[in-house]
Amino acid sequence: MKNQEIQSSILKMFKIIGAICLLLTGLKAFSQSGDLTSDNVLFKVDIAEDATPAVLARIRKANEHPISVIKFEKGTYHFYPDKAYEKFTRISNHDDVLAKTAMPISGMQNLTIDGQGSTFIFHGRMIPFLIENSVNITIANLTIDWSVPFHSEGLIVGNDSINNSFDLQLSDAYPYEIRNGQLIFVKEYYEHTLGQSILFDPKRNAIAFNTEVYTPISATRKSGVQHNLEKIKYKYKVDPRSKVEKVRGKEDILRVEEIKPGTVRIFNHKQKLPPVGMVLVCKGDQSLNRLAPGFRVTETEGFNAKNVNVHHAGGMGLIAENSSDLILDNFNVTPSQGRLVSTTADATHFVGCRGKVVLKNCTFNNQLDDATNVHGTYQEVIDILGKNSIGVRMGHAQQQGFTIGKTNDSIGLVRLETSFFPYGHLTLKSAEYINGRYQVITFNEDLPATLKVGDLIENIKGYPDLLVQNCNISRNRARGLLISNPKNTLIENNFFSTEMEAILIPVESSHWFESGNAANLIVRNNTFQDNQHSGFNRGVIRFVTDEENHNIAFKNIEITNNQFSQFDNLILEISNVDGLLFQDNTITNSGTFPMLYPDNPAITVNASKNIIFKKNTYTGKAEQILIKDASQPKLKFK
Amino acid sequence: MKNQEIQSSILKMFKIIGAICLLLTGLKAFSQSGDLTSDNVLFKVDIAEDATPAVLARIRKANEHPISVIKFEKGTYHFYPDKAYEKFTRISNHDDVLAKTAMPISGMQNLTIDGQGSTFIFHGRMIPFLIENSVNITIANLTIDWSVPFHSEGLIVGNDSINNSFDLQLSDAYPYEIRNGQLIFVKEYYEHTLGQSILFDPKRNAIAFNTEVYTPISATRKSGVQHNLEKIKYKYKVDPRSKVEKVRGKEDILRVEEIKPGTVRIFNHKQKLPPVGMVLVCKGDQSLNRLAPGFRVTETEGFNAKNVNVHHAGGMGLIAENSSDLILDNFNVTPSQGRLVSTTADATHFVGCRGKVVLKNCTFNNQLDDATNVHGTYQEVIDILGKNSIGVRMGHAQQQGFTIGKTNDSIGLVRLETSFFPYGHLTLKSAEYINGRYQVITFNEDLPATLKVGDLIENIKGYPDLLVQNCNISRNRARGLLISNPKNTLIENNFFSTEMEAILIPVESSHWFESGNAANLIVRNNTFQDNQHSGFNRGVIRFVTDEENHNIAFKNIEITNNQFSQFDNLILEISNVDGLLFQDNTITNSGTFPMLYPDNPAITVNASKNIIFKKNTYTGKAEQILIKDASQPKLKFK
Repeated sequence: MKNQEIQSSILKMFKIIGAICLLLTGLKAFSQSGDLTSDNVLFKVDIAEDATPAVLARIRKANEHPISVIKFEKGTYHFYPDKAYEKFTRISNHDDVLAKTAMPISGMQNLTIDGQGSTFIFHGRMIPFLIENSVNITIANLTIDWSVPFHSEGLIVGNDSINNSFDLQLSDAYPYEIRNGQLIFVKEYYEHTLGQSILFDPKRNAIAFNTEVYTPISATRKSGVQHNLEKIKYKYKVDPRSKVEKVRGKEDILRVEEIKPGTVRIFNHKQKLPPVGMVLVCKGDQSLNRLAPGFRVTETEGFNAKNVNVHHAGGMGLIAENSSDLILDNFNVTPSQGRLVSTTADATHFVGCRGKVVLKNCTFNNQLDDATNVHGTYQEVIDILGKNSIGVRMGHAQQQGFTIGKTNDSIGLVRLETSFFPYGHLTLKSAEYINGRYQVITFNEDLPATLKVGDLIENIKGYPDLLVQNCNISRNRARGLLISNPKNTLIENNFFSTEMEAILIPVESSHWFESGNAANLIVRNNTFQDNQHSGFNRGVIRFVTDEENHNIAFKNIEITNNQFSQFDNLILEISNVDGLLFQDNTITNSGTFPMLYPDNPAITVNASKNIIFKKNTYTGKAEQILIKDASQPKLKFK
Repeated sequence: MKNQEIQSSILKMFKIIGAICLLLTGLKAFSQSGDLTSDNVLFKVDIAEDATPAVLARIRKANEHPISVIKFEKGTYHFYPDKAYEKFTRISNHDDVLAKTAMPISGMQNLTIDGQGSTFIFHGRMIPFLIENSVNITIANLTIDWSVPFHSEGLIVGNDSINNSFDLQLSDAYPYEIRNGQLIFVKEYYEHTLGQSILFDPKRNAIAFNTEVYTPISATRKSGVQHNLEKIKYKYKVDPRSKVEKVRGKEDILRVEEIKPGTVRIFNHKQKLPPVGMVLVCKGDQSLNRLAPGFRVTETEGFNAKNVNVHHAGGMGLIAENSSDLILDNFNVTPSQGRLVSTTADATHFVGCRGKVVLKNCTFNNQLDDATNVHGTYQEVIDILGKNSIGVRMGHAQQQGFTIGKTNDSIGLVRLETSFFPYGHLTLKSAEYINGRYQVITFNEDLPATLKVGDLIENIKGYPDLLVQNCNISRNRARGLLISNPKNTLIENNFFSTEMEAILIPVESSHWFESGNAANLIVRNNTFQDNQHSGFNRGVIRFVTDEENHNIAFKNIEITNNQFSQFDNLILEISNVDGLLFQDNTITNSGTFPMLYPDNPAITVNASKNIIFKKNTYTGKAEQILIKDASQPKLKFK
């Protein structure tokens, strides 16, 4: 208390001095509550109209005038991009962006930013927290939101099967234009097309049941006329999903008319017409719509977020790369302002992170992608450049520029068609950035003679001890947890109700190039409620590889003491697993929705060994609980 | 000779050693002809298939292993972007690009790159020479070209006034797609729409006479439906020409059909239908088509280009910024491969350059913008931040990130509505980049009380002594020389035949924000042949300001001993000039084309003083040679 009083007195003194200076100079200076003499900075609500210049100015002086704590007087602060710091930034699983931020936390140590209950409202293409090359950064007690969201929501108010059209009613929150017969949602500093879309059920405040029969809306068809395109020759491999290539050979299929102000009619939908009363959520083209995550954390050791609410982001709530020891406690992704959607991509996402990754006491609701996704990267060997040096290619556009690891990290050499596990290991000497797609990787050791072009590399060290505990993961599009973590993972005491898998355990080598075959995974004491309700014929917990072989990919799995209360049959898909204990679980049928796949079993087992079922309780509706291949002839559900 | 022999012997020795090493390791290494022990590097044609990796690898080692000379064995070398060095780069008067180059010349000194007559063929979005923060760089004896150009050319083979359509025949060099009824030219790593367009006359190998009645093609009209767009509020000034804003309220107007493979019919053209036999040249949307200049030179002292041919670039041939002493000798911008177009923007362009800028013995033909443009920048004061600090805004999107000058440069404070000359001067302490549009400028002195938001600043030091001598400037779109240079300019012994002004002297404050009111300009011994032949009602040499006032903008001009051989009357437009001597010039009518503005005089004079006409010879067709306002009542043409 005494310290606070002294601080308060000093603060008052500085305010008086500041006021005198202001009077003397007669100039309109920034209201920059933080003075330069203290490493404790307090911003007050007088900067709230646009907090960017004052906050940025203080942070940019942190090299000469270090900061330990930045506090904000409780209030609502607006942040505009116009005077924000800008930096070209490649962010994994996002677009490359000219990141604009008021808080470029770069090369800083032992910093706490405490909102003291404040709300930060962002405008347009900004990244609230851009945290790079830092140590021990804590963000606490604040709420992030956007004035205008990067997605749009419209109520289905009519449909007409004769004309194959449906009607969308758009509130004042969603200004639009019809341009070339296409619906464009116009925003502050931004706009998007229909693009990626899904139905929400406003009554349930969640993804609509069986939305897959209605959405996504297909916006393109094959274009009619191409001439001489075969004459365009590329010397090297080209990504057909890149921005330049993906538009070729396609044109708009939808036709949109305004039937009255605020209501548009959409023709040429290819799937079943969406039901009246549902809300169509759309976020524009896939290669353009991940541009403004809430937190970007990279090359940082020690990151804590406590009591943080993320109501929106144009991308992920938090994306962390090549960082260690990230603790999210009461970090909540939930919608605001009557919106059905929170973040437009994953709530959280961790690439190449190590040490501890903890998600505890979090709510991940209504985001348009997974609650979390933990993985490394596969990089493809395309050049053998010398005795200890290779050229590698990034497979996915949103992995461009990703650095595979730190000096001396163990790098696995992988040939997925023969094994999911590395056939050799080398240690990293350097990763030289040439361009977004191409890097030169040099090892401490000579390359093995077996290494060949087309092999993949992955960082064996770049995985965490992962804990997901006491979290509510529901109402969102896509999965709950997407885990590619060979180290240790504990998932306990969580509630899952997601439209796809609650927990997906993949080997992902064909599209996203996300590495990490899971092992040492414990899933216990969780409740799974009506997952996979959007219509996919998939399990609630699912092990799957992209490769068509029977090799082991996943090891040492324990799924115990969970409650599965599902409207449909399929609970667990086991494939390519060595060692899985499924014990003390209770499986019931919830009756929440009509069953979509009543012929399914509860469990499938393929290409696996050492699978054990023990003391489970089944009161579901599957006629056959377990369907398995010949790999475990004696296996029975118990 | 002896030295060369020794070098050659050493080179041979290293080649033998290299060959042995290659055999020993058994690995396919880059054929990197330059060894690391010599500062004389020779690349041989064995790298020609894709020279990028080898050239880049050597240049990237230049810090530890310096290079004085890079020579190329005479040959044709291809450069692909796939393994090129990439860097986010803001280039004045170009788009912001992820520049890809094999030659990132950064922080280097006393380097010569000698092509020895080689041709470099680039593929896709590359910048052949990216020269930054360097000293004394020479590029000699080489030719730059692109495999596939960034523009497209199509022959007009039909037109139909009843259906308001014309037919365009596209050779195999121009693959295309019709997407949503729009013509898309598809390229290696790139594509463009019709966008900016103009007619060339293939018989004259130049811009078509009177093309302005046929082109540009208008590709957009007002879009039909907008709803609630007025609800989108911006806190700060927004550039309506920015990529986000410029598309609002517009939609496609053209409709394109393929009538047979390789021939398309274009409907809804708004101007006169282009005549059969002309070639329509198009280069896509204005905000997307300046992405790959031939040379980018910035913050460099001493740049020489000698015997260099630039056959193409997706932007300017050379763009130099904040550099000094740039000598271009026999630097030729001309088309190749049967194309009518060379570079898609200016042949050369100099922003904020000082010392000497020399263009001598150059040919600037068939480019799609000016032969050269020399200017500074105006930056708008939008914040007064303290006693010696202001926030400035870049007015044009293609000036983003431009640094106004060096420490201690004299910065003028300008209020154009009251004077074209600075009302005050300060010296630069620092320019702090915040984002592309916004910088914080700090001065050594306190701000004057008169400074107010809305004023402009310009760098008084950032102008050169400019010489344009013995150049052929013809067959191109737009101007010959666009000069905004208050220092010294000598233009002599050149040939001009351009579709707009041969020499334009502007104050440009409303769109491009290009500063520098010309003074000390000598134009002598030049030949002007049929300039302004595309249809504009403007003079061959023209002084003009964007402001509607009678203040003096230009001073001390001499136009002597030139030959004007023009098809039309208007030769010289004098406005806002103090001191102009027009002497010993000969003006005739060429009869090349029909006159477009027969009622025009040869010369107009407005808002000027100290204008002198002496010993000129007029045999043109103007009924009245001189039309003037009241500013010089006694002025007569002599």
